[in-house]
Amino acid sequence: MKKFVNDPKQFVPEMLKGLALANPTTLTYVPEYNLIQRADAPNDNKVSIIQGSGSGHEPAHVMTVGPGMLDAACPGDVFAAPPMDYVYETTKRLASAKGVLLLVNNYTGDRMAFDMAQEMSQADGLTVRTLFIDDDVSVQDSTYTVGRRGVAGNFFVMKAVGAAAEAGADLDEVIRVGEKVNSVTRTMGIALTACTPPAKGSPLFELGEDEIEVGVGIHGEPGRRRAKWAPANDLVDELLNAVVPDLPFESGDSVALMINGLGGTPISELYLLFGVAHEKLRERGITVTRSYVGEYCTSLDMAGASLTLVKLDDEIDGLLDAPAEIAIRVF
Amino acid sequence: MKKFVNDPKQFVPEMLKGLALANPTTLTYVPEYNLIQRADAPNDNKVSIIQGSGSGHEPAHVMTVGPGMLDAACPGDVFAAPPMDYVYETTKRLASAKGVLLLVNNYTGDRMAFDMAQEMSQADGLTVRTLFIDDDVSVQDSTYTVGRRGVAGNFFVMKAVGAAAEAGADLDEVIRVGEKVNSVTRTMGIALTACTPPAKGSPLFELGEDEIEVGVGIHGEPGRRRAKWAPANDLVDELLNAVVPDLPFESGDSVALMINGLGGTPISELYLLFGVAHEKLRERGITVTRSYVGEYCTSLDMAGASLTLVKLDDEIDGLLDAPAEIAIRVF
Repeated sequence: MKKFVNDPKQFVPEMLKGLALANPTTLTYVPEYNLIQRADAPNDNKVSIIQGSGSGHEPAHVMTVGPGMLDAACPGDVFAAPPMDYVYETTKRLASAKGVLLLVNNYTGDRMAFDMAQEMSQADGLTVRTLFIDDDVSVQDSTYTVGRRGVAGNFFVMKAVGAAAEAGADLDEVIRVGEKVNSVTRTMGIALTACTPPAKGSPLFELGEDEIEVGVGIHGEPGRRRAKWAPANDLVDELLNAVVPDLPFESGDSVALMINGLGGTPISELYLLFGVAHEKLRERGITVTRSYVGEYCTSLDMAGASLTLVKLDDEIDGLLDAPAEIAIRVF
Repeated sequence: MKKFVNDPKQFVPEMLKGLALANPTTLTYVPEYNLIQRADAPNDNKVSIIQGSGSGHEPAHVMTVGPGMLDAACPGDVFAAPPMDYVYETTKRLASAKGVLLLVNNYTGDRMAFDMAQEMSQADGLTVRTLFIDDDVSVQDSTYTVGRRGVAGNFFVMKAVGAAAEAGADLDEVIRVGEKVNSVTRTMGIALTACTPPAKGSPLFELGEDEIEVGVGIHGEPGRRRAKWAPANDLVDELLNAVVPDLPFESGDSVALMINGLGGTPISELYLLFGVAHEKLRERGITVTRSYVGEYCTSLDMAGASLTLVKLDDEIDGLLDAPAEIAIRVF
């Protein structure tokens, strides 16, 4: 294994320490609970929004904390759900008079930690609700999931509930918005290589020299099929043929198109995929009016990409358009 | 080779097409000359700034076009200088009454193309000057370079001259600013893996399972030494021991610190490196007041990272603080 790491057990804390040092005035890192929060949270005039998950999916979720997005992120170790008591402590710290919304990508381990933390917080008298995200169309149940998995489409849910909360919406309204966006968001990904967790030191699964995994999960879970490598045009067809009919997205629709890198794929290839998908959607009568190209939800160093479509209406377009600011930035 | 690519010969045009489709109102793609430009350029009230280089370093430079940064980028094929006549045509299209500044990372092939294009443009009566960037401290001469190579530190030069040009500075002043920033910027990188050009289909050089290249070039050129993998703390020491004494950066200095990913390294590892470097600089009495973590100048899918320091004063701090907007964005 060749990674930039010291003790693999300290991989997540050392990453979080770097994140906090790079954002000294806007983020607070609480090492006791592996917690990254907005320095100015909680705010009793807005619903607090927290997402947690295993680490290894950065920028999700520790690097998507900021105005108009998350108030806090509560990560576990690499590909491990956060401990229930960490989620509970995070929820208590972020408690707001308007309530707390927990966002959870649909994995069984995460559901358990967040369900129990919600119960404990509610027993304390806090107003806490949970919203599950399950945008991955590739398989119905999976290695670590009952139902569909939550993957890169979670960005759009975060963005929408973040915008609604920032505008002062109450908890019911924030949840309505989040459920609406989740209901019109669909994703599927392809792995070109496996990923290597720092503590394991070797690839999590095996892919042959010319093999790819179509519909891969972001922890390396199997997808729909193991296939031979094919040109980008064919791979985009395969993704669109899974994603488009699932909602379905139809001729006349306006959509947001996201090409998300899984960690080891350069942005040049992501833009190539974006161009191909944009054209192929146009041929189907579907218009891309919002564009997202880059890394949003990764799987450590996996080479690969996912394609997400969101069906837009004026309300969702407005929420995605709202200002937001997170740790990941260029300037 | 497993990449998202169709015909390798069309890799760059297909990427540029995707980039333009993702930025339909702000960028214009001119396929005849592989040119990406601001849709609203040229502007006779500001110096036009153009950078070109081989492709494969994205976001540099085609994705750093926009207000406050480049007016156009003129890329060659992967790791190949742009053709002289493309640079010439780009320069003519971007001609402004205030002049044109060509930014060139110091590689012999790029110098030749840009020198000749500058001569041809000047023969046409255009006001055109060139600024060379050479921030890489690792080696004096290199496979494709006389003198030092230009690498990720070129971001700071682009940002500074972009800010000065946007504020209406004349060509002499823009060049003064660019030379000043280049003179206080130092970089060195480490490769954990080689990179694979789409047209070659196999790694450009060989690195053993536990080997790294210290001081690697962004085209895979050899650095200072081939070494055994070591923990992140030790690798940051090696980078700082090369970069800090070179200027030198000294106790009491304020610096911008950039940890730049080389294409295949996830952002989690980059933040880990950032945290380690931040602390080690503090121990040397050097204060990080500006933070940059992510991909700025890559080498296709190479796993690795570079560390850049810029010595700040009020003028440079102001230029780096100025608003700018480029194609790479989150929202």
